[in-house]
Amino acid sequence: MATPHATLVFSRHGESQWNVDNRFTGWVDVDLSEKGLGEAKSAGELLKADGITVEVAFTSFLKRAIKTCNIALESADQLHVPVTKTWRLNERHYGGLQGLDKKETVKKHGAEQVLVWRRSFDTPPPPIDDDSEYHPKREAKYAKLTPAELPTTESLKDTIARVMPFWEEAIVPELKAGKTVFVAAHGNSIRAILKFMEGISDDDITGLEVPTGTPLVYQLDAHLKPLPCEVAVAPLKFGRYLGDAEKIKAAAEAVKNQTKVG
Amino acid sequence: MATPHATLVFSRHGESQWNVDNRFTGWVDVDLSEKGLGEAKSAGELLKADGITVEVAFTSFLKRAIKTCNIALESADQLHVPVTKTWRLNERHYGGLQGLDKKETVKKHGAEQVLVWRRSFDTPPPPIDDDSEYHPKREAKYAKLTPAELPTTESLKDTIARVMPFWEEAIVPELKAGKTVFVAAHGNSIRAILKFMEGISDDDITGLEVPTGTPLVYQLDAHLKPLPCEVAVAPLKFGRYLGDAEKIKAAAEAVKNQTKVG
Repeated sequence: MATPHATLVFSRHGESQWNVDNRFTGWVDVDLSEKGLGEAKSAGELLKADGITVEVAFTSFLKRAIKTCNIALESADQLHVPVTKTWRLNERHYGGLQGLDKKETVKKHGAEQVLVWRRSFDTPPPPIDDDSEYHPKREAKYAKLTPAELPTTESLKDTIARVMPFWEEAIVPELKAGKTVFVAAHGNSIRAILKFMEGISDDDITGLEVPTGTPLVYQLDAHLKPLPCEVAVAPLKFGRYLGDAEKIKAAAEAVKNQTKVG
Repeated sequence: MATPHATLVFSRHGESQWNVDNRFTGWVDVDLSEKGLGEAKSAGELLKADGITVEVAFTSFLKRAIKTCNIALESADQLHVPVTKTWRLNERHYGGLQGLDKKETVKKHGAEQVLVWRRSFDTPPPPIDDDSEYHPKREAKYAKLTPAELPTTESLKDTIARVMPFWEEAIVPELKAGKTVFVAAHGNSIRAILKFMEGISDDDITGLEVPTGTPLVYQLDAHLKPLPCEVAVAPLKFGRYLGDAEKIKAAAEAVKNQTKVG
């Protein structure tokens, strides 16, 4: 097996308050729940227990990811590590669904339509209302984005299109330099990079569930190709989750069940 | 009065566990106390209440400053702001005094000697023992420092000598660009910059007490000269503290009294 040249570690943010409330979140800047704070701490402890020394970290403009990043670095005793924050690692913008209760949305629009919005690769939900309190134009931190950059809704394809330029410009150079890189982000911004790393098809990527607060580790060769991993959990072939394997599978199932109407 | 071109805001970290224990801290990476966490939160609330929008933040490699920075930005609703961490903003290295109880040190070495170590401009304490658990060579985060850069003890003059290159290289360009800059650091790394900003003499700077968790705001002109401030608390002529004036004076007195043996 090739010697690893660089290491790339993902952590999806821990549970947020709107995960608890079962509402579509997207770019709404919802805080972590108590459980989410604990998951972030646990992610850092897992990094430390695995002997991973992060050299540079990346996160989004949303506090649930930034706090996951900061708390994980702290519990790994690596709080001095440089952290770059970018809107390009934000969660997928959920357009007009943002703020809505997931089960209510299913009752209103039908399970099939909601599944299309959540799981189609290139069908975005309806755009956010121009006068919605959640419209990103109301937030100073997005003031520097061009009108073309500022989303009003996104499909996963759209999310990938704005994540990958940052991947190329900011993350790839650190990996080429042989560093250990930590990315604390969101289900869909992580999917964007995983699709590329794992070579997952458009159809399959939307069904890939990344558990929260569970570091996912890739070893890369000098060409940044991921090295195969024997303990990868299907459909992953290269990524290794840190922590309890059974808990990881259960967590992924729980995310899938959020829009099931009981 | 000239129109402000840029804004520079300092916050000394909140109370640490070793402030509570009355031990010399320096580069020992001691955490904030519960009170210190509250002070950091309050610092951010004061920034927000004053309408200050931070554009870039700087902090040290020590968790009590990094956490003060992160918590203050969070409570100011500005957690997305870029933060640069550097060892050059660390607290003064207290050499062989690090870890010692302040009053015990006075009993052992005499109040006069301890006052010289704490308040002389250019007399450092004895160097830290090579086999001390607190020697910075044991910490991975300082591995990139040259032997000449890695301190074994520092006078305030030495601290200033390693802070100011960072000020010139990293902070001045942001201020020249007209930005609002937040520096969350330590008593002595803040003194280094304040000495320069306020034109305070070598003799007087060692007696300047900066209260914890209380933002100190400077308005600068286009040449980065501070604009005079009517409500500056002597000996400051340009800096404006946010928060309750009486509390600020009391906090400064409390720091002075730490080595008084009752």
